[in-house]
Amino acid sequence: MRIVVLAGGIGGARFLRGLMSAVPEADITVIGNTGDDIHLFGLKVCPDLDTVMYTLGGGIHEEQGWGRADESFAVKEELAAYGVGPEWFGLGDRDFATHIVRTQMMSAGYPLSAVTEALCARWQPGVRLLPMTDDRVETHVLIDDPDEGRKAVHFQEYWVRLRASVPAHAVVPVGADQAKPAPGVLEAIAEADVVLFPPSNPVVSIGTILAVPGVREAIADAGVPVVGLSPIVGDAPVRGMADKVLAAVGVESTAAAVAQHYGSGLLDGWLVDLVDAGAVDEVEAAGIRCKAVPLMMTDAEATARMAAEALALAEEVRA
Amino acid sequence: MRIVVLAGGIGGARFLRGLMSAVPEADITVIGNTGDDIHLFGLKVCPDLDTVMYTLGGGIHEEQGWGRADESFAVKEELAAYGVGPEWFGLGDRDFATHIVRTQMMSAGYPLSAVTEALCARWQPGVRLLPMTDDRVETHVLIDDPDEGRKAVHFQEYWVRLRASVPAHAVVPVGADQAKPAPGVLEAIAEADVVLFPPSNPVVSIGTILAVPGVREAIADAGVPVVGLSPIVGDAPVRGMADKVLAAVGVESTAAAVAQHYGSGLLDGWLVDLVDAGAVDEVEAAGIRCKAVPLMMTDAEATARMAAEALALAEEVRA
Repeated sequence: MRIVVLAGGIGGARFLRGLMSAVPEADITVIGNTGDDIHLFGLKVCPDLDTVMYTLGGGIHEEQGWGRADESFAVKEELAAYGVGPEWFGLGDRDFATHIVRTQMMSAGYPLSAVTEALCARWQPGVRLLPMTDDRVETHVLIDDPDEGRKAVHFQEYWVRLRASVPAHAVVPVGADQAKPAPGVLEAIAEADVVLFPPSNPVVSIGTILAVPGVREAIADAGVPVVGLSPIVGDAPVRGMADKVLAAVGVESTAAAVAQHYGSGLLDGWLVDLVDAGAVDEVEAAGIRCKAVPLMMTDAEATARMAAEALALAEEVRA
Repeated sequence: MRIVVLAGGIGGARFLRGLMSAVPEADITVIGNTGDDIHLFGLKVCPDLDTVMYTLGGGIHEEQGWGRADESFAVKEELAAYGVGPEWFGLGDRDFATHIVRTQMMSAGYPLSAVTEALCARWQPGVRLLPMTDDRVETHVLIDDPDEGRKAVHFQEYWVRLRASVPAHAVVPVGADQAKPAPGVLEAIAEADVVLFPPSNPVVSIGTILAVPGVREAIADAGVPVVGLSPIVGDAPVRGMADKVLAAVGVESTAAAVAQHYGSGLLDGWLVDLVDAGAVDEVEAAGIRCKAVPLMMTDAEATARMAAEALALAEEVRA
């Protein structure tokens, strides 16, 4: 079975681990969000790709969900001693090495997709990890700054520094309209037996991937089941601050509203949590097959069951 | 008193510490060798400038003489895990931060001299540290490779990887002939009351600085005493492998031969160690005032005495 998964960071990575446990023989291609990539200290940092790579490769800081296990922070301390910031982005020493290798390869002319493949040669994530694009896309968030008025900040500044504590007026994947899908992305979608949307952020993760011209169309036209899992449980995001960016795109923070945001033209099936069983009818009325199942990724087994439910719903849709 | 010191790495840095202790009120400008600079992992590394900066700024690994105290090696371990080398160059985590800041600033368009000034804003070395040039100069060493025949390798590869274990047929400061002295270099020399050559490597450290067009001439024309300290004691280098590169330029590894290599057109005074007292007459016959004093930088006091002797010889020459 060939599965294509659109993934953001922590939620996507943990879901993938469950999926691989549910269907160990599956051929999985992950299309990773690069809209939250950022240049820090002259280095190219790809938080979502790295979270997937570290999580599936056994290098992740498990409790934190991002960054490396057994991490130290000598480089960051020294940069601060030089007065070089930002200090709000927590890069550890081991993590720095990844960004140094990536930046060196990119400076030598390799596209991000080739660099990602090279990094994965070490981590052996067990999936094919593709960036959504080799082109530069940067998600910006429009906020009201107390001093400077309305202005756009990098997504990481909004998310990490400001902790999404101020209203987001708009979320703009800058550069996405000019981006081309990375080599292999459209081919993987065209050859997929099923496409899954993990409980990743529907705006700044999956939404950004879908904003790359050709990706949404390829998924809609693939003629295979497209099934998603709600990142909203009981009207609040399971983790992260998805509600803040959903508001920016005018979508309610409910499992049903997110399904309708994707729309029946794209989505064939939608899993909501048991607490949102009341939303099933509304989603189905919108033309999307819906089922309520436990959606908390509390441990590996629960996550594997979620993945199995998503695949079962895909088969239901297909039949 | 305005003193200009031409400095390589460890020897130059330790001498400077002695000099500052001997004449705390002096206004010292250090012209640092950049011929052993190297790009590693996409980062610009300046071993000699950093050794001076860390030594005078209190960050040096004292026993080792280069690199940072309390150093860790997580980044290097990770790079090795990615299969990215070279592994023979020992960059620690704290040291990496310096190279990251430097590379980021240079990518933003700042010349090395401005970057060095910015780094020194943290370290407060107590001297004005100038790179010899803002242009790229790379010292290459011509060796016989068992497989590839005669070829040029970067000085660091010769020195660190090969530990100068093979004969050096030539030492070439590539790019030096096109380099311009960094801002402030010629001015500092013109305004100096005395110019000192510490017991640094006469070929790959001081020789490289002198190879930047205009520097040798400025020193010779400054009309102030130019005094050097022999890096050779008892026919062997005090530290390092100066004899190997001296052979490449056809100079004997003796205190007298090094003085004559600099020449009376440049050098006014020369200190040799007590064990080389027999060389004093030969050096003086070559037109260079010479004195035998203890030249082992065994501790801070001994080093300060050496610096004081050099300044005393300068006054003798001046009178």
